[in-house]
Amino acid sequence: MSWSLLIKNGTVIDGSGAARGKADVAIAGDRIAAVGDVARHIGPKTTRVSAKGMTLVPGFVDAHYHCESSRLTARRHAEVTLPQGLTVYFEGTHEITNAARGLPGVEYFVRAGRRLPQKIYPCVSSATPPSPVETTSGYIGYREAALAFERWPEEARGIDEVMDLPRVLDGSRRLHGVIQATLDDRRVVAGHGSPPLDVLDGWIAAGVMSSHSARIAEALTMLRKGVHLQLKTERSREMIRQFLELPLRDWRNVGLAVDDRTAADLLDRGGMDYEVRSAIEFGVPPITAYQMATINNAAHWQVAHRHGVLAPGRCADVLVVSDFDNVVVDRVFANGRLVAANGRLTAPLDAGAVDPALRNTVRLSRPLRTSDFEILAPPNRTEVQAYVLPPRYFSRDLGPITKTLPVSGGRVQRDLRRGITKFAVIERYGKGMSIGCSFWELGFDVGAIAWTVHHDHHNLAVFGATDEDMAIAANRCAAIEGGYVIVQDGKVLAELPLPVCGLMSDDDPARVADAIRLLDRVATGMHPAPSLADHPTDRITFMNLTCDPWKYSLTDQGLFNLETQQRMPAVF
Amino acid sequence: MSWSLLIKNGTVIDGSGAARGKADVAIAGDRIAAVGDVARHIGPKTTRVSAKGMTLVPGFVDAHYHCESSRLTARRHAEVTLPQGLTVYFEGTHEITNAARGLPGVEYFVRAGRRLPQKIYPCVSSATPPSPVETTSGYIGYREAALAFERWPEEARGIDEVMDLPRVLDGSRRLHGVIQATLDDRRVVAGHGSPPLDVLDGWIAAGVMSSHSARIAEALTMLRKGVHLQLKTERSREMIRQFLELPLRDWRNVGLAVDDRTAADLLDRGGMDYEVRSAIEFGVPPITAYQMATINNAAHWQVAHRHGVLAPGRCADVLVVSDFDNVVVDRVFANGRLVAANGRLTAPLDAGAVDPALRNTVRLSRPLRTSDFEILAPPNRTEVQAYVLPPRYFSRDLGPITKTLPVSGGRVQRDLRRGITKFAVIERYGKGMSIGCSFWELGFDVGAIAWTVHHDHHNLAVFGATDEDMAIAANRCAAIEGGYVIVQDGKVLAELPLPVCGLMSDDDPARVADAIRLLDRVATGMHPAPSLADHPTDRITFMNLTCDPWKYSLTDQGLFNLETQQRMPAVF
Repeated sequence: MSWSLLIKNGTVIDGSGAARGKADVAIAGDRIAAVGDVARHIGPKTTRVSAKGMTLVPGFVDAHYHCESSRLTARRHAEVTLPQGLTVYFEGTHEITNAARGLPGVEYFVRAGRRLPQKIYPCVSSATPPSPVETTSGYIGYREAALAFERWPEEARGIDEVMDLPRVLDGSRRLHGVIQATLDDRRVVAGHGSPPLDVLDGWIAAGVMSSHSARIAEALTMLRKGVHLQLKTERSREMIRQFLELPLRDWRNVGLAVDDRTAADLLDRGGMDYEVRSAIEFGVPPITAYQMATINNAAHWQVAHRHGVLAPGRCADVLVVSDFDNVVVDRVFANGRLVAANGRLTAPLDAGAVDPALRNTVRLSRPLRTSDFEILAPPNRTEVQAYVLPPRYFSRDLGPITKTLPVSGGRVQRDLRRGITKFAVIERYGKGMSIGCSFWELGFDVGAIAWTVHHDHHNLAVFGATDEDMAIAANRCAAIEGGYVIVQDGKVLAELPLPVCGLMSDDDPARVADAIRLLDRVATGMHPAPSLADHPTDRITFMNLTCDPWKYSLTDQGLFNLETQQRMPAVF
Repeated sequence: MSWSLLIKNGTVIDGSGAARGKADVAIAGDRIAAVGDVARHIGPKTTRVSAKGMTLVPGFVDAHYHCESSRLTARRHAEVTLPQGLTVYFEGTHEITNAARGLPGVEYFVRAGRRLPQKIYPCVSSATPPSPVETTSGYIGYREAALAFERWPEEARGIDEVMDLPRVLDGSRRLHGVIQATLDDRRVVAGHGSPPLDVLDGWIAAGVMSSHSARIAEALTMLRKGVHLQLKTERSREMIRQFLELPLRDWRNVGLAVDDRTAADLLDRGGMDYEVRSAIEFGVPPITAYQMATINNAAHWQVAHRHGVLAPGRCADVLVVSDFDNVVVDRVFANGRLVAANGRLTAPLDAGAVDPALRNTVRLSRPLRTSDFEILAPPNRTEVQAYVLPPRYFSRDLGPITKTLPVSGGRVQRDLRRGITKFAVIERYGKGMSIGCSFWELGFDVGAIAWTVHHDHHNLAVFGATDEDMAIAANRCAAIEGGYVIVQDGKVLAELPLPVCGLMSDDDPARVADAIRLLDRVATGMHPAPSLADHPTDRITFMNLTCDPWKYSLTDQGLFNLETQQRMPAVF
């Protein structure tokens, strides 16, 4: 026997936390065979590659990721992220499973991951549907989760982000069923969100093993309670600084995660390479920062014997880094083969054809009409009280959201001068096309935007300055099988078709990124609220969730107080 | 709902690596419900316990342990070790499975652990039989391991110490089958031993995830290669000092393990409490030392959501420590109940009756005779060359082991002045009573010792200064259903019956410990070789293994060169 590949003369940071040292890495097939002095099995068939002056590190492992947020299919996404060193990711499938009738969404990533050199571990969704107050195409409970674990035991290592805090605490049969199926099969329960401290213990006791946090006291409390933290560096600069002042003694439960990032942002900023670079820039010792992107995440997901260290038996995923502290990835080896050099793929990727069942997922039973967006006032009123969603993220402590709105012709009117526009969510999975409609303080005093990337139900959402533009935008968005459409005065100004589940494009990533940038540029010209100014078409996808810490949400079923799960009238 | 138990006013070291802090621990049933400020759910049924002035730490988790080495049944062993804080152990079952026909040995520990407050995770044996050159009562291959995982999915978390290095490297169907069954079911493969560096990579690539080491270079190499180290402090003092000089940045893969310890030693020195105390004494920061006995081991075995930190959802195993640095365990709570105080159990334990099938395991088809121990010389010789086992542990680098021995009456004789005694291993499981017999440089110039605790086949072993005493000792040992018997001039001087599998006693631990001490005292008076002077009756159990780094071994099948697996003549 001899090695198939030998990466020579590099300096190794193996991921174990040990200091760097000269070592060669020998690969047999798709596995690392030996690290160190590996001269003994070099043979005539051994390919030799020099890494002189370079540092060899394990391929990056993202502990919490949504490929769908790139707006790219798994193959197109890999084209962007493999050259950045992302060789393994734990895919939270609740986007695709809500759009693709449940488990077929998990299967999509299993199949893609088996063909790509990028290893994909699709986590079964804990949020399909995300809450009882919205309609989606899929349902995952105990039975479905158990079935997924039986069908894909190696890939489906656990469930993605448990986040419907009220349902955790109230003992929802579906959600606790999914958690139980995971624990019953000795798998990992990922969490999400920042429960208030007085219920954090209950949330963890329910089985949740990981979360995000960007607040030092909360993060430290979670670490104390054994929770694996998945940090997104851009929100964590201050917290990391405080960790370093403490100093945090034990980083094993601190990992990095990209979570959601569009193709445009991936190309502009980077992916996990950017997270590691940022962590180092914020002061994390470089070896620790690399561990946060490799072994810490692999160990959390119980795959440290496969990923996260340059050691025998692990998948042969090796990054050749030309500038260690600045995380410049020169070459990427995955499954024992060179897959990228200088930021570019060395050969095309093949993930198989996309299952036709994942297309044509925007199934409206009829075109939308302006009357779908009319909100009637009680009789004989010139103005009404309306619940108006505020333009804010992530807040449990909202003040009253009641505003006075004018009535004209018996219909409640927008107040665009105060930034109050009309917003609708339309069930798009062929389940009756229920429509919720209310007001939202989003800005945008002209035109309309329709889109199907709307966390986490991904129904068809649309807002606009006129009902006419709303109908045109929404119908166009349905016609292109989902994606984004921006309309003004009856004309389409920009659009991005996302025909795979209404979430992803199989088009060239650079073109998708260009379309995203154009959407943002056009949307910015429509005067969004200041909180949406940065990347408005990405922001709007996250602004109306039904999980903690959102207090209200408009779904296809109407407007809801999420704490009480009670429906609220749009106006009264 | 209100807590069942509240441990108040203590200082908590929760195991996460965080600094100590004031916190209360609230328990609901057998689980920890909350840690910190837990006033909110105190009710009339909440029992309150003060830990004022005390430190609360998680119950100890031993990552690699053999209850059998205590010579006590699981229940009797728990009587000794629960008051020392050992609330969880990963039991390497290859002792009992070799003696109890395979899986019934695993089942014994599953059943006991389900009834005791001490959690037992019996690892399926990778060493049943330990090698192809010995006879035992059990066989565990792929099928048997897979069956065990199916029957006891929660308890049988993996396999115990892979140590038959030649079989790992040669691709033994049985051993690789057991490893594969473990990996197929996403479980943990524990290793053992210190393969030479040139084959270490192959050993790890085969799936081995843990090992022991007491040599700094080797240990650091293993850590670099992602191996979890299970340190036994008494062999690791110097290595730990070197770790601290480095300094070792990342201790997560360094755990403590007691491995083997007799009831006498457990009572005299302590168990995991002693290991933690020693680690602190050697300079390990105390919080890290406690992590080495808790979370590091729990995480390695993928049960960090159950054990190893004082956090919600974990088993309610809490140690109340009165002297943190000296590891003085004042009280032990296990499964949410007080089980020990001041080193003593607070209530008797119940592990159910021992299955009668685990008794009467010494099944000789006839009594032993002096002629069984005769070694014939080739015709017409006054002296012969003999392979004489040296009295040494753990060495790959043995010189020649050939000695000249006298012949008398056609029979090869001992040379007691040079410490060369006669040694026999007798198959004792009713499988034909094959007998291997050769010479061993053990010292012991009088009497004979017979015993059935003989790693890892646990056949009946006997050595002695006369064939007559050997026969008497061996027959007596069979009559008491296994254990230890020391005979001199035809009289029994000391004995310890171990009627459960020939390995364990269900008697009072103090009495068993007294018997062990007496055996050692008597054996010491029989002039053992210097390397056996300390605890001779324990040492002899480990001196004749068939795994790496032993180079030769006498089994019931005869004398073997373990590297080549070739049989060797006793004399030539």
